[in-house]
Amino acid sequence: MNWTKKDLLGIRELSKEEILLVIDTAASFKDISRREVKKVPTLRGKTVITLFYEPSTRTRTSFEIAAKRLSADTINISSSTSSYVKGETLKDTARNLESMRPDVTVVRHNMPGAPHMLSKILDSSIVNGGDGAHEHPTQALLDLYTMREKKGRIDGLKVVIIGDIAHSRVARSNIFTLSHFDTEIVCAGPPTMMPPYLEDLGVKVEYDINKAVRNADVIMMLRIQKERGGISFIPSTREYSTYYGLKAEHVKKAKKDVIIMHPGPMNRGIEITDEVADGPYSVILDQVENGVAVRMAILYLLIGGEV
Amino acid sequence: MNWTKKDLLGIRELSKEEILLVIDTAASFKDISRREVKKVPTLRGKTVITLFYEPSTRTRTSFEIAAKRLSADTINISSSTSSYVKGETLKDTARNLESMRPDVTVVRHNMPGAPHMLSKILDSSIVNGGDGAHEHPTQALLDLYTMREKKGRIDGLKVVIIGDIAHSRVARSNIFTLSHFDTEIVCAGPPTMMPPYLEDLGVKVEYDINKAVRNADVIMMLRIQKERGGISFIPSTREYSTYYGLKAEHVKKAKKDVIIMHPGPMNRGIEITDEVADGPYSVILDQVENGVAVRMAILYLLIGGEV
Amino acid sequence: MNWTKKDLLGIRELSKEEILLVIDTAASFKDISRREVKKVPTLRGKTVITLFYEPSTRTRTSFEIAAKRLSADTINISSSTSSYVKGETLKDTARNLESMRPDVTVVRHNMPGAPHMLSKILDSSIVNGGDGAHEHPTQALLDLYTMREKKGRIDGLKVVIIGDIAHSRVARSNIFTLSHFDTEIVCAGPPTMMPPYLEDLGVKVEYDINKAVRNADVIMMLRIQKERGGISFIPSTREYSTYYGLKAEHVKKAKKDVIIMHPGPMNRGIEITDEVADGPYSVILDQVENGVAVRMAILYLLIGGEV
Repeated sequence: MNWTKKDLLGIRELSKEEILLVIDTAASFKDISRREVKKVPTLRGKTVITLFYEPSTRTRTSFEIAAKRLSADTINISSSTSSYVKGETLKDTARNLESMRPDVTVVRHNMPGAPHMLSKILDSSIVNGGDGAHEHPTQALLDLYTMREKKGRIDGLKVVIIGDIAHSRVARSNIFTLSHFDTEIVCAGPPTMMPPYLEDLGVKVEYDINKAVRNADVIMMLRIQKERGGISFIPSTREYSTYYGLKAEHVKKAKKDVIIMHPGPMNRGIEITDEVADGPYSVILDQVENGVAVRMAILYLLIGGEV
Repeated sequence: MNWTKKDLLGIRELSKEEILLVIDTAASFKDISRREVKKVPTLRGKTVITLFYEPSTRTRTSFEIAAKRLSADTINISSSTSSYVKGETLKDTARNLESMRPDVTVVRHNMPGAPHMLSKILDSSIVNGGDGAHEHPTQALLDLYTMREKKGRIDGLKVVIIGDIAHSRVARSNIFTLSHFDTEIVCAGPPTMMPPYLEDLGVKVEYDINKAVRNADVIMMLRIQKERGGISFIPSTREYSTYYGLKAEHVKKAKKDVIIMHPGPMNRGIEITDEVADGPYSVILDQVENGVAVRMAILYLLIGGEV
Repeated sequence: MNWTKKDLLGIRELSKEEILLVIDTAASFKDISRREVKKVPTLRGKTVITLFYEPSTRTRTSFEIAAKRLSADTINISSSTSSYVKGETLKDTARNLESMRPDVTVVRHNMPGAPHMLSKILDSSIVNGGDGAHEHPTQALLDLYTMREKKGRIDGLKVVIIGDIAHSRVARSNIFTLSHFDTEIVCAGPPTMMPPYLEDLGVKVEYDINKAVRNADVIMMLRIQKERGGISFIPSTREYSTYYGLKAEHVKKAKKDVIIMHPGPMNRGIEITDEVADGPYSVILDQVENGVAVRMAILYLLIGGEV
């Protein structure tokens, strides 16, 4: 199949075939970053803008490296140096940038739906790099790619997502990808962090993580998002850590070949112990490496460069 | 004719022939940004530094994209990450940067004349990216290019500039370009925003914008520059908007094929209504697109790369 | 000889042969920046990350230009836009970045030993871009290169370093390079700024700079490091300037062909007068130019690209 969408706004808009196309394409790009010369001319003469209204190291850097390894030119704009201090609207900034003829603009914004809004007014491609608590599609795609790479399949997996599900765009996007497959999805965390829509999506809810992790193939920890007010939903980080932080004892209850995931950046000692984060089941750094490959795939599919 | 100047400091230093050379060169570069492969090798192996002491999205990005599409390497330095927190003088920073052998340094600084001062102490090329309320030559050149592109000529045009003329480097530089042609220049705005030098330049002053816009070929709105204290010269933005904000009723009084310009970022609802900004006469986004072409032309003319 | 180290952590870890290899390699790269086309394909397809936790114009820019002139791709990360606002540890950030397969990461951090710590946990190359008051190896290498270039030799030189020796990574790294040669090293400054280890290193200490500079071949001024608390060790900058600021009268007491160095950024009028900084003996801007060549050499030696 071919990619036909102009944008990557969210997983919700993607079919199962499109999701698989991205991760298959990513698999074909992964090797480039391991070569001596990590660069192919595929997107030479293309322009990729990263427009980030929230601080980010890994996502911005991952997109920038992905673009450069495909030989695209990159332009970074972050809110601290942008015209937003002059009160320009997001729409005007985006329209202005589009007039400079970029091929893709990657947007991160704290407003849910910001990329969707831009998609409607722009002819060039938009990639959602995270919009508030709504979606983070490239994260879910790299997570899915990592699961398939490590487990050899998606169907049949039990995936447990632990943390502040209600405020997590990572959880939402992952639930949307996994729902396309024959998976068992369990969300665990304090009741105040469970959104009401989970059961409609066929997701099981569990408040005791000891039960949740039983026989899990994949345990995906979420970050306590202090910067998005997540902390106000729990009595204290210490109590959170006691009841919902992932420890070695939990890992033992999962399948023997369980993989432990985290989207980063980690709050070590809060949602995950050092022992687990750095242990043999952790695939956290594989996620980061695969993130570059997935973003190369997305840029390639959207721009449709010469191969 | 050939370009012979080392720097682009201001429009005031340019002859009519030099102005036309820039916009003719820009016209020949415009198409590059619309191609599939938006890149030519013209400035390969050249180094362009952007040194910005004021926040800017569009100007810095426009120069960066222009440089990259000509295959130059770009280095961005903004005051927030620079040695200025360590108290280094502008002269020393510039001399230091020059020792790294850039070909062009684009400077934006709140001090009028900063690029001129640097020009005297540096052998490499300086481009004025905006110096206080003094000049913004690439803006005026892209404005002139846009007028000629849309109207087919410059001679014979009535150009109305509305806003805080006294504090606007955009207005000053535009007046200097337009003065080389057989144009009627009218400046309109509150009396406190009209500089004394206008009549010496042959510019008409009008306090009632209803009169000013009559038969205009071009209406150029200026931004209320809150960040440069412009707001203190008017009673309130509401009153300003009432008397000097451009509305559809004004556009009707101009010529039927009037074009509406704004250098951005716009304060919608203050100096311009949405209806006008997004209406059929607006060429605001064309200005942005032409800005890349004009900056490609400037870099090319200053560096004199291989074609 | 060949370079065999994975990293450049400090001068202390280098042999005399390694030091000479760097500056000989730098000499072969210096010409590239003076050509019409300042770029060679040596490191095409390589990725260089600059990860700066302290503000810096010249060091970051110098590395970025060095990398680009060798055709490497560069990624800039500064603490103001990084995940550190989200509380991630340096180790995790570094491990994450490494998963994106950079070839070299240049780190500047206020914690002495930060690059050494990263070196142990990462397989990719680390370059110390300055770690607290500990080391600044590329600065010392470019200083040594400049001395050899200007004086034709290192052996037999009398080098006087003046300022806050105790808190200066520049002084430390320079003492380590110079100690490999038959040099006379004199450190001068107020007693509160003299570290106890100097005599063990064979460095002479002098509190009167009039005596210190006598017959000097090289006078290296240090910056008063206001941002690292250096100012608290002296009664006032005025008194410091009176007793330890370099003035023309001091230069006369040195050898006739003395060279004056400063790592920048300069506090003019405090540690050095304008007359000296801009005078005929100053090689301060040569240091900056040679910095690009030395950093090209380091990147080349660490990555071992194709020539």
